[in-house]
Amino acid sequence: MEINECVKFLSERDNYLLVTHARPDGDTLGSAAALCRGLRKLGKTAYLYPNSETTENYLGYAEPYHAPDGYVQDFTIAIDIASKDLSPKGYVGGYDLCVDHHMSNDYFARETFLMHAASCGEVVLTLLKAFGDDIDAEEATLLYIAVSTDTGCFAYGNTDAGTLRAAAELIDAGADNGYLNKTLFRTASIARVKLEGMIYSGLEFTHGGRAAIAVVTLDMLKAAKAAENDCEDLASLPGRVAGVKAGITIRENKSGSCKVSVRTTRECSADAICQRFGGGGHPMAGGCTIQAPPEKAKERLIAALDEVFA
Amino acid sequence: MEINECVKFLSERDNYLLVTHARPDGDTLGSAAALCRGLRKLGKTAYLYPNSETTENYLGYAEPYHAPDGYVQDFTIAIDIASKDLSPKGYVGGYDLCVDHHMSNDYFARETFLMHAASCGEVVLTLLKAFGDDIDAEEATLLYIAVSTDTGCFAYGNTDAGTLRAAAELIDAGADNGYLNKTLFRTASIARVKLEGMIYSGLEFTHGGRAAIAVVTLDMLKAAKAAENDCEDLASLPGRVAGVKAGITIRENKSGSCKVSVRTTRECSADAICQRFGGGGHPMAGGCTIQAPPEKAKERLIAALDEVFA
Repeated sequence: MEINECVKFLSERDNYLLVTHARPDGDTLGSAAALCRGLRKLGKTAYLYPNSETTENYLGYAEPYHAPDGYVQDFTIAIDIASKDLSPKGYVGGYDLCVDHHMSNDYFARETFLMHAASCGEVVLTLLKAFGDDIDAEEATLLYIAVSTDTGCFAYGNTDAGTLRAAAELIDAGADNGYLNKTLFRTASIARVKLEGMIYSGLEFTHGGRAAIAVVTLDMLKAAKAAENDCEDLASLPGRVAGVKAGITIRENKSGSCKVSVRTTRECSADAICQRFGGGGHPMAGGCTIQAPPEKAKERLIAALDEVFA
Repeated sequence: MEINECVKFLSERDNYLLVTHARPDGDTLGSAAALCRGLRKLGKTAYLYPNSETTENYLGYAEPYHAPDGYVQDFTIAIDIASKDLSPKGYVGGYDLCVDHHMSNDYFARETFLMHAASCGEVVLTLLKAFGDDIDAEEATLLYIAVSTDTGCFAYGNTDAGTLRAAAELIDAGADNGYLNKTLFRTASIARVKLEGMIYSGLEFTHGGRAAIAVVTLDMLKAAKAAENDCEDLASLPGRVAGVKAGITIRENKSGSCKVSVRTTRECSADAICQRFGGGGHPMAGGCTIQAPPEKAKERLIAALDEVFA
């Protein structure tokens, strides 16, 4: 579907439900909320499917657009959803239209408006402008969240000149990028920072620096006063180090076992490492549980890595 | 000095030496090297002052432009230098022109071309375009380094729409932002990670959590085996913590004094805090030197913060 066809499609219909993907991120939520607002400015009735997995940091942006109980849409729009099995928890219906930027989109919706871009936010910005929408500060904020979160605040390899120009437009239209960047990317709790301090200080390098192993004990969590939400994505920390092919995080469970997260570069398979311990995952990210205390789990992982790097 | 006057100044003269600031960062080095290249494209003779404190990660970009032994310039240009005492090690001469973006610039040079921007890279880009320079991939790379490093890869509060548009232009002109971002922002050395571990572990919170103070001693650098290269942008670490309005990094110098970096939110002025100690900077980022060992410097900074937060 070309952009003018998409504009025509949305202009001619009414009573929309916009659906975000499972485990929603800033891109799906910001894009959906911005398009919802844009449709309302055209006089349409439009709501977001209330995605129950929306995390606290995005809830304040998405919730004002949530459909009230009993709302029945005439047309359903999938936002940033590449295939039907990425539908959010509890949503079982079909889709009349999909607006997306994943070139892997499998055309599960009746109509699809697909545009190659780093973020779905850029697609929605293009679409809103094609409607003649004079982007307001609220839309700009929602789309800035979309564009910036999907590009790691413009640091990831998907960021291109178009991404940066879109973000510039959004700032001009009122997105407070300084505030948004600070809250989305540059803020951590004291507990988190203390915990990272302990993890980095204790990081162990093996196999000539090709592996980095972090251990997170119950004592460390207690000392840092860290709760579960301070522990998000700890698995990515060991892999930050230059030269590390396998970044391993061993986290002690209360039951006495350890949860192990493995992140690898393309040179070795996280999935294969985790399968040795009855776990699994993807080529570059996997997990498993080892029935042993941290130091013993580390020994067993090092032995497994001996073979991987042999 | 207006931009057309600056263009005229540089066009009418020849045999330039471009001088970067002490402890040079990506902005001063990238800006100076790009302007040097642009001047050469105009047929001028131009070299960089070989700044002995240039860190490994930037040396490959700056060194090809270093002045050979015995080079004697006719005109000296300060790049990204806000005041004369920020001259690099070993440089004792005066300045004919200063090209800068620090609004706190004290007009120490004979002529000053000052433009309000997040980075000096944006100033040099504007200047090169005013010369009619068709920005090549090498200039674009050097200026991308300048713009991205001074804005924390577009995450800091100084980033504005102009910054992002400048970066978009540089990508269009051939800057490989994916590669540059990965090497500049998303990879850390073992020493860096160990040092961050120590800094986070020792982070001190004062004024009800509104200030966070990091101390980086010579002993810590030794224990982490950290070189200058591993110390870039340590100043941003304390400000990561939620609720912190002033993030302060105190770094012990070999001479017994301390270099202090201050990063603030909009609620208080980094420039004002640093001016109390004879330094200065921008509203949200400033620096000063305190002639005291770290613990004493910390006491004096806490006393200053008592007044700021009174």
